[in-house]
Amino acid sequence: MKTKLSIVKIGGNIIENESALNDFLQDFSNVEGNKILVHGGGRTATRIAGQLGIPSKMESGRRITTKETLDVITMVYGGLTNKNIVAGLQNLNCNAIGLSGADGNTISSSKRPVGEIDYGFVGDIQEVNAKLIKTLLESGITPVFCAITHDGKGQLLNTNADTIASEIAIGMSEYFDTSLYYCFEKKGVLRDVEDDDSVITHIDSISYKQLLDTGIIADGMLPKMHNCFNALQRNVKKVHIGMPGMIVGKEELFTTLTL
Amino acid sequence: MKTKLSIVKIGGNIIENESALNDFLQDFSNVEGNKILVHGGGRTATRIAGQLGIPSKMESGRRITTKETLDVITMVYGGLTNKNIVAGLQNLNCNAIGLSGADGNTISSSKRPVGEIDYGFVGDIQEVNAKLIKTLLESGITPVFCAITHDGKGQLLNTNADTIASEIAIGMSEYFDTSLYYCFEKKGVLRDVEDDDSVITHIDSISYKQLLDTGIIADGMLPKMHNCFNALQRNVKKVHIGMPGMIVGKEELFTTLTL
Repeated sequence: MKTKLSIVKIGGNIIENESALNDFLQDFSNVEGNKILVHGGGRTATRIAGQLGIPSKMESGRRITTKETLDVITMVYGGLTNKNIVAGLQNLNCNAIGLSGADGNTISSSKRPVGEIDYGFVGDIQEVNAKLIKTLLESGITPVFCAITHDGKGQLLNTNADTIASEIAIGMSEYFDTSLYYCFEKKGVLRDVEDDDSVITHIDSISYKQLLDTGIIADGMLPKMHNCFNALQRNVKKVHIGMPGMIVGKEELFTTLTL
Repeated sequence: MKTKLSIVKIGGNIIENESALNDFLQDFSNVEGNKILVHGGGRTATRIAGQLGIPSKMESGRRITTKETLDVITMVYGGLTNKNIVAGLQNLNCNAIGLSGADGNTISSSKRPVGEIDYGFVGDIQEVNAKLIKTLLESGITPVFCAITHDGKGQLLNTNADTIASEIAIGMSEYFDTSLYYCFEKKGVLRDVEDDDSVITHIDSISYKQLLDTGIIADGMLPKMHNCFNALQRNVKKVHIGMPGMIVGKEELFTTLTL
């Protein structure tokens, strides 16, 4: 039987609230066994970019990453956010190590081809170096990934944190029994978007299809769910979506996805 | 016999010149065997701080590190500079991993006590986690350290890069035959500061004392040399001071220090 590994993704709403982040780090440090953290960090980057006079261009909800924007992202995601999370986890006796995909060549990607939209320095993931990540875990280390990868030719690339989390989970499934946790501000996938307690507690391939057909899963949830089932089809054991406390069993309601 | 390990420190004058940095990274990637890079990065931090409206306060040539300055340092040293160096080395087939002292608890420090001057969030090194660094080296990884450590209680601390390099060299001497290289803009320790070619090619404990007595080593060289002999007295095999090319035998002149 393979050893368990939890991959936890947190978004900007937790990172940018000091008290929420501290609560989360406490919970995360209490997750038993092997674990990996993946963080985004959007709004601080937008704020710092603004202070530096760099405009933040968005296109269909996605950041256009110019050279100047990439520098800000590298400073904020890779430096400020990542190193403070690592220092916070060290204080909780969790031996964290902060990584971008360039570090140890852990995640390589290719610059997204210019189509109708030129997203700039954005990377689509090519490969996760699962072997090195395994070596770190076996040395008692907890990797903390920021949303930056590299092309192997010296170029850093801005990369979606949700996708980084699922690709790491997929890559690590060769060696571990992997569970993927997407923490966000809702209690889970909702049957009725107006009712925060209408959490669908379990979704499998069959009910997923029904939820798609009936239009209950729609809009922003569509790519997220697609990401989740992609992970499940590529050997990730379970995916969970809900509030951060679910990672240590503090939440009664959250959504579990299985094949 | 122990395996060889080279610890190379580069300063701001190399980091902030793109062509000099690329040349250096090429040379560094060609250094054979186990190696570790330590970098500072002062002027970019001063520039970004200025753009963000944060004043850079200096006291006797040292940066006073306020909370705001520490954030800028964490962004620039830990993010922008460190991750771009790592990506650059990956391009040269050097499997680099960027680290602050918080990462893997590799370097712990304590906040400098407030004396006549309050240096702010500045750390004096307590311990180097040589065992984890050894594990990384044995996995084929080249650690790249920025000039940030942590107190183990969640606080990042700005730390002198020269001192980080010598403390790493001392810590690693338990496991390796360590050589320490301080790269700077001069060809070495000069007998006559007005003559760039008056390099003293070898200094040992006896000639060191003579050079101190005659006043040839003075001013800014005093703390640097003290640092070097401290390393030698604590089991570092050799210390070299000179221009970056010396690390791959490109320089005819440089200074070698031994006990």
